Amino acid sequence: MSLDYFFKPLGVAIVGASSDKSKIGRQVLDNISASGYRGKLYPINLKETKIANLRAFSSLENIPTRNFASILVVIAIPAQFVMSEIEKCGKLGLKNIVIISAGFKESSADGAILEKELVEVANKYKLNILGPNCLGFINNINRLNASFAASGSGTGRIALLSQSGAIGSAVLDWLKDKNFNLGYFISLGNKASLDENDFLEYLANDKNISAIILYLEDIKNGRKFMELVSRVSSKKPVVVLKAGMSERGEQIAKSHTGAMAGASAAVKAGLERSGAIMVESLEELFNLLPLLQMESMRERLSNTFQIVTNAGGLAVLSADEISKQELFLRNSIDVLGDADAIKYELALRNLLSQKSKDNILILLTPQTSTKPLETAAVIIKLSKKYPKRLIVISFLGGAAVYEAKEIMKHAKLPVYAYPELAIRAINKLSDWKDVSFGVQPYKERLDKFGKTEVDYLALFSLLKKYKINTVKTIRYGTEATLTYPVVLKAVGPDFMHKTDKGAIMLGLDNQLSLEKAAASFYSQNKKIMQKEENYLVVQPQISSGLELILGFKRDVSFGPVLLVGLGGIYAETFKAIKIVIADLDKARALALIQSLSFFPILNGARGKKSYDINSLADVIVAISRLANEHAEIKEFDINPLFLKEKGALAADVRAII
Amino acid sequence: MSLDYFFKPLGVAIVGASSDKSKIGRQVLDNISASGYRGKLYPINLKETKIANLRAFSSLENIPTRNFASILVVIAIPAQFVMSEIEKCGKLGLKNIVIISAGFKESSADGAILEKELVEVANKYKLNILGPNCLGFINNINRLNASFAASGSGTGRIALLSQSGAIGSAVLDWLKDKNFNLGYFISLGNKASLDENDFLEYLANDKNISAIILYLEDIKNGRKFMELVSRVSSKKPVVVLKAGMSERGEQIAKSHTGAMAGASAAVKAGLERSGAIMVESLEELFNLLPLLQMESMRERLSNTFQIVTNAGGLAVLSADEISKQELFLRNSIDVLGDADAIKYELALRNLLSQKSKDNILILLTPQTSTKPLETAAVIIKLSKKYPKRLIVISFLGGAAVYEAKEIMKHAKLPVYAYPELAIRAINKLSDWKDVSFGVQPYKERLDKFGKTEVDYLALFSLLKKYKINTVKTIRYGTEATLTYPVVLKAVGPDFMHKTDKGAIMLGLDNQLSLEKAAASFYSQNKKIMQKEENYLVVQPQISSGLELILGFKRDVSFGPVLLVGLGGIYAETFKAIKIVIADLDKARALALIQSLSFFPILNGARGKKSYDINSLADVIVAISRLANEHAEIKEFDINPLFLKEKGALAADVRAII
Repeated sequence: MSLDYFFKPLGVAIVGASSDKSKIGRQVLDNISASGYRGKLYPINLKETKIANLRAFSSLENIPTRNFASILVVIAIPAQFVMSEIEKCGKLGLKNIVIISAGFKESSADGAILEKELVEVANKYKLNILGPNCLGFINNINRLNASFAASGSGTGRIALLSQSGAIGSAVLDWLKDKNFNLGYFISLGNKASLDENDFLEYLANDKNISAIILYLEDIKNGRKFMELVSRVSSKKPVVVLKAGMSERGEQIAKSHTGAMAGASAAVKAGLERSGAIMVESLEELFNLLPLLQMESMRERLSNTFQIVTNAGGLAVLSADEISKQELFLRNSIDVLGDADAIKYELALRNLLSQKSKDNILILLTPQTSTKPLETAAVIIKLSKKYPKRLIVISFLGGAAVYEAKEIMKHAKLPVYAYPELAIRAINKLSDWKDVSFGVQPYKERLDKFGKTEVDYLALFSLLKKYKINTVKTIRYGTEATLTYPVVLKAVGPDFMHKTDKGAIMLGLDNQLSLEKAAASFYSQNKKIMQKEENYLVVQPQISSGLELILGFKRDVSFGPVLLVGLGGIYAETFKAIKIVIADLDKARALALIQSLSFFPILNGARGKKSYDINSLADVIVAISRLANEHAEIKEFDINPLFLKEKGALAADVRAII
Repeated sequence: MSLDYFFKPLGVAIVGASSDKSKIGRQVLDNISASGYRGKLYPINLKETKIANLRAFSSLENIPTRNFASILVVIAIPAQFVMSEIEKCGKLGLKNIVIISAGFKESSADGAILEKELVEVANKYKLNILGPNCLGFINNINRLNASFAASGSGTGRIALLSQSGAIGSAVLDWLKDKNFNLGYFISLGNKASLDENDFLEYLANDKNISAIILYLEDIKNGRKFMELVSRVSSKKPVVVLKAGMSERGEQIAKSHTGAMAGASAAVKAGLERSGAIMVESLEELFNLLPLLQMESMRERLSNTFQIVTNAGGLAVLSADEISKQELFLRNSIDVLGDADAIKYELALRNLLSQKSKDNILILLTPQTSTKPLETAAVIIKLSKKYPKRLIVISFLGGAAVYEAKEIMKHAKLPVYAYPELAIRAINKLSDWKDVSFGVQPYKERLDKFGKTEVDYLALFSLLKKYKINTVKTIRYGTEATLTYPVVLKAVGPDFMHKTDKGAIMLGLDNQLSLEKAAASFYSQNKKIMQKEENYLVVQPQISSGLELILGFKRDVSFGPVLLVGLGGIYAETFKAIKIVIADLDKARALALIQSLSFFPILNGARGKKSYDINSLADVIVAISRLANEHAEIKEFDINPLFLKEKGALAADVRAII
């Protein structure tokens, strides 16, 4: 399914074109013409024969072409008439379609049914459909504005995909104001057929595009998304603003888009795994633009800074921000309050002639001898001369520095309203990582579990299959030599939350106290304990080792997501947990362990004993395998896992099918 | 020392006024005239008799006045000539002076000497001197621009004090661009005589001023600053941007201002104690301005939100940010993409007629039926009708919403470029607290310690005086019945860091192993142990209780600063410490304990045992007293303090005099 003819069609048919200039179909037609599109235009209108000086056609089948597959169809008619047009497209061999019309999933139950039909027809004829309920797309590289949003006349190196039409149009309006041009703008709409994954695949190979930005409200196929982003990221950064990352935001997003999104913790883990640059707000997103459009930005980027300033105070504030972002300030050069452009030039030349790759942050406030315009000219000149160095600029003030800032922006230099914004943007970009992905060593197993909540001792056997050591656990009443003290536990479907029901009896020192505890428990839980699935088990009581939690949850979009954390009260108090995609091999498991907030405790800081990190990594890998091989398990927890100086022991386990 | 005549003089003398318009003295003269000042003007110039159509005087003593104290003198001449003018002022009874001239402490060692003389003369004659090395001040309320910075023609309700002239002038330029007027602008310069505390005192009582903003690079008298800010904060918010809060920033600030600032941890504790609103960047500061200028802002402020939006995506992003700031979103009303001004009005009226005090966040993106201007008019109308409600606005876009935003800004409504900025600004303002201050129950004691590092057992006695229970500690070799196991410790000036030198011997189970350990230690540390100040002590080994650290450090500006933290490895790993000003009574100590990140552990979360919070509070109060009563102690630590289910025991103590 190539999107070549989608983005570079030989002709465009506009269903819903009209002589009435207020109609959206007409606005699209005008936008296509105005954008300088060189292909053929086919306005489609039942009644009219001439629209905007172009010959109009009464139906798609009347288009004079032998190559329907090379034509893009834009549909802007009421929802109830859309399906028959799509069916027509399918039959004619028109493959590439933009449905601008609203009135589908986003609006009502009837609309959702209509959209379902749409998907079926799209699949049947293998159609590329953008939308419905979208603005269309703009391809500035090949001069085609197939949307009803206004576009500037230039082009750029960034592709922006937006799942919200409203945000998309606001951003376009904002960018126009700033004279900032995109390469592509794609309004994703309801994503009935084409979604972010299809466009990522296409844009990955477009050499005109150096960065891809996505505003998303849901990610339909998280597994594929991760794979794609990791692939694209090796060549160009993928920036994702995912709305609905808070619980409250997620609620509103669901009611707004009707989308069944993955849980936000899983989305976060998935985005991290993919190597995407995650931003959390529009401001953060916009602040990245001046850097993303730079040539060979990655080669320029450094985590060390040099400052040139005519105001000591600004340098101090910048140093504070650099520290806060955990970047490094090598030096701050104060050219002093009376510095003219020549002093700036001297300081800059000196820095640029050095071999270092430090980012240079140029600060300026308008003072008596300051020459903002001349200084800007110096900066533009030197930036051109040193295309491998990252120079970011913040001139603070109003009218006194306005023109200087404008000419630097026009020269595509990264100019920021405040120094802290430049520093944060650079720090954000340093999240851009090359990640390997696609290693999927785990396959689904056949010996699936059947019940909703799995038998306790069966789960212990499963752990053993995966070579995870467990605390010796026997059914109460079984003949065995016990080492006291022991723990008595009630297990089974009625004891999924053991602590709540007094189902864990600790510190039983001898056979007598064990028997007493068991008898007392039976008598207090007669009814429940009559069920065969509920029974008592005995374990030796473990007194040493660090208590950890380890488990996974299966996300609808991103697949199994693994949680590892400190057990007990410290986990809650210090939120000492981490959630990652459960595709860990040994190397990744070791890296994960090192990234844990409580790694110093595992590693034995301050002369304390260290724990068996290698065994922990083995357990993490085993749980990863288990999560991938047993697709029938929805949730799985080992809590606690006792990590020892040597080895690790699972003491309790729980699963939901 | 009233500043009435400083800010509202009957006349202004400008030393350094000149016919040469490029001279700073002349610029000040022109600014005073242009600002609409109604008092007398006395240009002072040795040679000229007429300047800018005003009669000029050859020297300050020639000013035709009987009330020198009512006159403000602005000095803008080279540094080497300043002293004789100041001396002249002193003798004539000219009390109020602005020294704009640079070339003092900030420039050289000679300059620093000159500034010292200046301070002496100022003290001798009780002069109010602003500067040197400053821009001067602007009093827009009484129409007097006594600075060489340009000012707008209006006035406002905010006073801005800046220790950096460069940042001050940039901010003024920026504000002029935004048509935003301040009540006062004060460039603090080197703060040789008048400093932030003097102006806080004056502005506290100025009813025209509803908020005070300070950009500071150091705080000279932190103790007084806290008192003043807490007093002012009961009436109006005090916002502080303190540069140099990072280690690197502090370094640059010191080299830049030559100021001996308090340590940043102490500054932070002090600002928190004072009830000031701390901001960390210029952007954060600027984002507060639209809220700070509102009438009865405090009464409007709520921590719950309602959203009205025509774009679901923007509401989702806002909900994410509201969650992130730990505020609450009650409801989000989507008036849908086709909403015109009437739909906005209906939704708004409905919200405003409710009894709740929720903040209302209005979001808009330009879509096909959107009416930005009409919607802005509706918002202005309803904002006026409901002056007790906080309405914040974010219209996203460029040209399509520009004018609408401008007219709302002109109506002094809080309009933000992005919703997240509005939410963060509101959250910041919620830091504005009324704090009681000035309760100073502790006085300095007479029985001071003499030595640099204090005798170990003497410190244990000191703890007992303050009713802090200690682990029974005796000198090794003293007759006593010991409870084994015991700990043997080497103490004294050579063992300040005990763990480094093997100076703590744990787990000695009986008399024999104790004697062996002592003998072995003596033989390995012969030379050091010959010093009388070094000796061995014996303590019973404590095996239960939670290990805490408790201590204080004396800051040069803010006085004693108390640290409380979790001991051992968890403190380091999770940065589980808190630093506060050491003036705690029992109530404040209990509040401090509740604010600790590890409070859940103290309080016995998840069915675990709880620790004796009341005893911990008593120890904290005792350490506070000790810190205040023993001004000779620079640093003091109890580490560990064993907190038990009942009681608390100090096991080790260290002090530096």
